Amino acid sequence: MLIATPQSLHFEAPLPLRSGASIRAFDLAFETYGTLNADRSNAVLICHALNASHHVAGVYADQPKSEGWWDSMIGPGKPVDTNRFFVIGVNNLGSCFGSTGPMHINPDSADGQVYGADFPVVTVEDWVDAQARLLDRLGIRTLAAVMGGSLGGMQALAWTLQYPSRVSRAVVVASAPNLTAENIAFNEVARRAITTDPDFHGGHFYRHGVVPKRGLRIARMIGHITYLSDDVMNAKFGRQLRHAVQDAAASTDYRYSTQDVEFQIESYLRYQGDKFADYFDANTYLLITRALDYFDPARTFGGSLTQALAPARSKFLLVSFVTDWRFAPSRSREIVKALLDNQRDVSYAEIDAPHGHDAFLLDDVRYHSVVRSYLDSLAAEVGV
Amino acid sequence: MLIATPQSLHFEAPLPLRSGASIRAFDLAFETYGTLNADRSNAVLICHALNASHHVAGVYADQPKSEGWWDSMIGPGKPVDTNRFFVIGVNNLGSCFGSTGPMHINPDSADGQVYGADFPVVTVEDWVDAQARLLDRLGIRTLAAVMGGSLGGMQALAWTLQYPSRVSRAVVVASAPNLTAENIAFNEVARRAITTDPDFHGGHFYRHGVVPKRGLRIARMIGHITYLSDDVMNAKFGRQLRHAVQDAAASTDYRYSTQDVEFQIESYLRYQGDKFADYFDANTYLLITRALDYFDPARTFGGSLTQALAPARSKFLLVSFVTDWRFAPSRSREIVKALLDNQRDVSYAEIDAPHGHDAFLLDDVRYHSVVRSYLDSLAAEVGV
Repeated sequence: MLIATPQSLHFEAPLPLRSGASIRAFDLAFETYGTLNADRSNAVLICHALNASHHVAGVYADQPKSEGWWDSMIGPGKPVDTNRFFVIGVNNLGSCFGSTGPMHINPDSADGQVYGADFPVVTVEDWVDAQARLLDRLGIRTLAAVMGGSLGGMQALAWTLQYPSRVSRAVVVASAPNLTAENIAFNEVARRAITTDPDFHGGHFYRHGVVPKRGLRIARMIGHITYLSDDVMNAKFGRQLRHAVQDAAASTDYRYSTQDVEFQIESYLRYQGDKFADYFDANTYLLITRALDYFDPARTFGGSLTQALAPARSKFLLVSFVTDWRFAPSRSREIVKALLDNQRDVSYAEIDAPHGHDAFLLDDVRYHSVVRSYLDSLAAEVGV
Repeated sequence: MLIATPQSLHFEAPLPLRSGASIRAFDLAFETYGTLNADRSNAVLICHALNASHHVAGVYADQPKSEGWWDSMIGPGKPVDTNRFFVIGVNNLGSCFGSTGPMHINPDSADGQVYGADFPVVTVEDWVDAQARLLDRLGIRTLAAVMGGSLGGMQALAWTLQYPSRVSRAVVVASAPNLTAENIAFNEVARRAITTDPDFHGGHFYRHGVVPKRGLRIARMIGHITYLSDDVMNAKFGRQLRHAVQDAAASTDYRYSTQDVEFQIESYLRYQGDKFADYFDANTYLLITRALDYFDPARTFGGSLTQALAPARSKFLLVSFVTDWRFAPSRSREIVKALLDNQRDVSYAEIDAPHGHDAFLLDDVRYHSVVRSYLDSLAAEVGV
């Protein structure tokens, strides 16, 4: 079993942000797996999505259940084989898992308060700039690959535009060239649930010793619905009653309550919401959903994705999942088309997995085979 | 212009409910349009969905903008022609628009408190029983038609099962034989937003002089997303920025905020949420979404919808909309199939309207033509 060791680096130079603000100094939490080869050509950077972190693969020593969020994909002998590649997981700025974020001391605060709602708005592009500084410090000029799913896929795509000469291949899974109005709408409802929670205190809840858990729970419940497909939800929960599941001898009669759990799906969502509210930071949730909303490389090209993707020089693998209604295959195909318009080398796989958006995190043999083949050919190219 | 006049009737006999509880006495608010013919054979009952009422058609005197919620469908010369039919709109028990509901005095309360959270759980079947009593009082033995969209369609379907001899035709629009897990999930998130609002007070907020507006706003925002199609949301709002819409000279640059409105879709959802929280009752929201969750005629027939619909004797028109992902056409087709299994007379139209679930309320020429033809043939049958 791969043992993961969290690391951290401090960066003194201010990071200018797309908003015009800047972060004065910052830390980035990261992990690495495998060994960097002599000519430093086998590095693979993994970018994370909404609620994940730098803990991508393996487990922590003495914590056998602490698998990284993409552990099925990354490790010795896995599709992204850490016997051949040097894999880097990095926690994004504004997150709540080690990199500088809203719960850290704001250096501009006279009385040493934490950032809270004053943490600057960060974008996908800003994250990529910060990740590039991490690579500089690790002595890595060029990535064999940058890879991510969902919001992580947006970062992978942004890498190929901001640092085209530093990326050989990009693997963009279950992603999109921007969010649709419906996507933004779901993010906005989740944000409103958090910001209108009386315990949010305008984002400065830390100094009140409270956490806007009600809002976080609602945000997570909404998220969970959109990560799953209607089909998989029906297969997993259907209209099953909670008490009938808990007690096989219980009747299948309704209990007739508006506030108690009646259906199994309700119990599942409440559990997921409770769990999330216990560990996730409310300001981080706002920051990360906003980064999603703002990502739109075509915006400054009059909406032309083809023009926006012209700077890219890497090869690409795009993967989408047919039951993903949050980041539908049609959105990946927009990226594929824009890349082909620019005569880029693009592979594309549309996987008929039933799991909706969540599929990108799951162990589907067709999906993993596609990534494995792509990384195998990269390994041959790199000579590892 | 049709002038509507709200009416109300009091019912003294207790109404037994599916939960085992009963309502001791109750009022039903209703409106009628057109004239009941001599042999009382031209009555059409309209059942309402989540946030609607008995005010189905026309306007109130001196309130020119007070159109009923289905005014495009019902009125003189309209698809449901009030020159020929006697149309009845009725407000359901538990609602907040005039019929007995959570904000009314609980007769079982020693100190004259309102029901609040103690209002009994009501089901689609209970509503139909109450509506049948209204028809008794109006001297109507048989409905020429019962008609409704969404939750209203569930009531129309239930009418054909509970009172098969009292319905000639049922028009079931954008409905389903039960909710999917995803539907229940969206209802549950909305309910949790309301019940975890500190102003909810377990449903007894009236006595505290507050309203759980935060929760109601979130509930409504979630609802709105699911009523619209992704396409119509993109066409209507896309990624348009709020300040660019308000001020044509404004730049199209982002303003970089996690809490302020940035996109037009956010502004729209906040507005809809605010409006709803000003007029809708939180306990009613819980009751009506639960009635949706609970409706499932096949449940007591081992899941066989064919067996469940065997008692129906009426003719049926089913209508669905291809972009409706809340009550997808496949759900209407389940009803059509089960009715055909029972050799019932069924017409079915699948309308390629772009508006998602909301389409059932809108004025689409193909949709209205289908309903018009169906009601025309009914008029001929009835002789009006």
